[in-house]
Amino acid sequence: MCQLLGMNCNTPTDIGFSFTGFRQRGGLTDHHEDGFGIAFFEKSESGNIGLRQFHDNKPSYLSPVADLINHYPIKAMNVIAHIRRATTGEKSNLSNLHPFVREVWGEQWVFAHNGQMTASFISRTERLHANGNAEHYTPVGTTDSELAFCYLLNRLKATFKSRPSDEALFAFLTAQCRYLSANGLFNCLISNGNWQFAYAGSLLFYLTRKAPFGEANLSDGEMSVNFGDLTTAKDKVTVIVTIPLTNNEKWQQIAVDECVVFRDGDVVFKNTPSKKTYLSIEDGIALARSVGASV
Amino acid sequence: MCQLLGMNCNTPTDIGFSFTGFRQRGGLTDHHEDGFGIAFFEKSESGNIGLRQFHDNKPSYLSPVADLINHYPIKAMNVIAHIRRATTGEKSNLSNLHPFVREVWGEQWVFAHNGQMTASFISRTERLHANGNAEHYTPVGTTDSELAFCYLLNRLKATFKSRPSDEALFAFLTAQCRYLSANGLFNCLISNGNWQFAYAGSLLFYLTRKAPFGEANLSDGEMSVNFGDLTTAKDKVTVIVTIPLTNNEKWQQIAVDECVVFRDGDVVFKNTPSKKTYLSIEDGIALARSVGASV
Repeated sequence: MCQLLGMNCNTPTDIGFSFTGFRQRGGLTDHHEDGFGIAFFEKSESGNIGLRQFHDNKPSYLSPVADLINHYPIKAMNVIAHIRRATTGEKSNLSNLHPFVREVWGEQWVFAHNGQMTASFISRTERLHANGNAEHYTPVGTTDSELAFCYLLNRLKATFKSRPSDEALFAFLTAQCRYLSANGLFNCLISNGNWQFAYAGSLLFYLTRKAPFGEANLSDGEMSVNFGDLTTAKDKVTVIVTIPLTNNEKWQQIAVDECVVFRDGDVVFKNTPSKKTYLSIEDGIALARSVGASV
Repeated sequence: MCQLLGMNCNTPTDIGFSFTGFRQRGGLTDHHEDGFGIAFFEKSESGNIGLRQFHDNKPSYLSPVADLINHYPIKAMNVIAHIRRATTGEKSNLSNLHPFVREVWGEQWVFAHNGQMTASFISRTERLHANGNAEHYTPVGTTDSELAFCYLLNRLKATFKSRPSDEALFAFLTAQCRYLSANGLFNCLISNGNWQFAYAGSLLFYLTRKAPFGEANLSDGEMSVNFGDLTTAKDKVTVIVTIPLTNNEKWQQIAVDECVVFRDGDVVFKNTPSKKTYLSIEDGIALARSVGASV
């Protein structure tokens, strides 16, 4: 269900321009009008990374909370945002709004999902919980998405007694996402504030803006920005999104079943299936509709 | 460190009036200017309880996030807010802002603390974590408060394999809070959205507004409200705070080492020490200062 937006940078960056376009899809240029959420990882003066979140069950294009985010620029190292079109789980329930957050080994992990898990995955995983076999994490709301997130984190803690190396972690997350993707339609963004992990089950694109910076025009509104005016030559900002936000830049599509991890705006890990498949946006939307999700 | 504000009601209620006074203490009428946080438990159409949180490291009296909360009234069943004066943990680190949240058995638990844990509690509990003996919850930030919260939740999960009865739970929390209070200065508010648990180690007051409703005048600003104009005869709203917010209502002080739990605005559990002690506000402030905390 829904659409994803992520950002990962090497310098604290305001996501305002991308968010301005993205929030229009929550009721104005598209139908994802059942609320939104956004999580910002910000750096303190001494370099510690802290998280804050905003959620609203109003459509994002007219939400006063979304207005605040545009008017009170927050400079963040990592951002995950999500606009919701409810397919599974009650609409007005705040517990059903992504991104979902859990603490893992003293880190805040943020997760947002686009897709739809199968009925069989849902009933199987709910049974695990009912039988007390999902020791650490339990969903609060009623979405298939939070269930998938809890499944993944319970597997993580069952597999590793303490935080493994990033390499082992990314390989583990890749394997788990492929398992989840085999049990539903599954696109996701995950961040611990340091890295951002993107997995495409159908549609996901990214773009890295760096010097020389140019102008960008939003697809969802009359807005252009010349990033050359707002950046320094060292800045590197990667934006990840379900459907490209601008109409004059070259977005890189993530292949079906591909994982890409970003840190400081760069790709630091990639796992691509031997046979690369890219869905057209039309096919991605049709696939989502066919399983009762939405893009 | 800091001050606490809680609300527990039998009908969705806007905390605006109390928050208007409380936020002035974050830099204007008092010195708690190192950021604030507020968590709202709201009811969905079908009665499910969902949580949303707002944090800002700006002083609450001038924070745009606090402005939003005043201008975009959120009607909630339970609220916990906290204004911070940093004594332990970096000031600008968002991870050090209360309230802290963890998922427990599929519920969001919100916690805010006023006080200061002893150096010996901190080093002992940090050692537990370093040795891998704190299985479920680990602090993200660097405050003694989040450490105490994680300690309490790890004890909870070690003691109960699944959610016990409310009676057993409140008795457990009372015992744990007394233990924490013996290891520092410890006042806290805890809510799972359904009940709100208040423990006083030094200063904590509450007030239940119900019919016949009267007028209330803020202590921290020129503002009065006649609750008769805003409520129905069935409404019951309890406000809990470190130092009373109004100057013309009768606030009930919670005794030192007393636990009170509220549900639907009513007291549903109370555990009072055999010898009741009440600190004056002056003595409470002096006690906080003497241990390096602030009220």
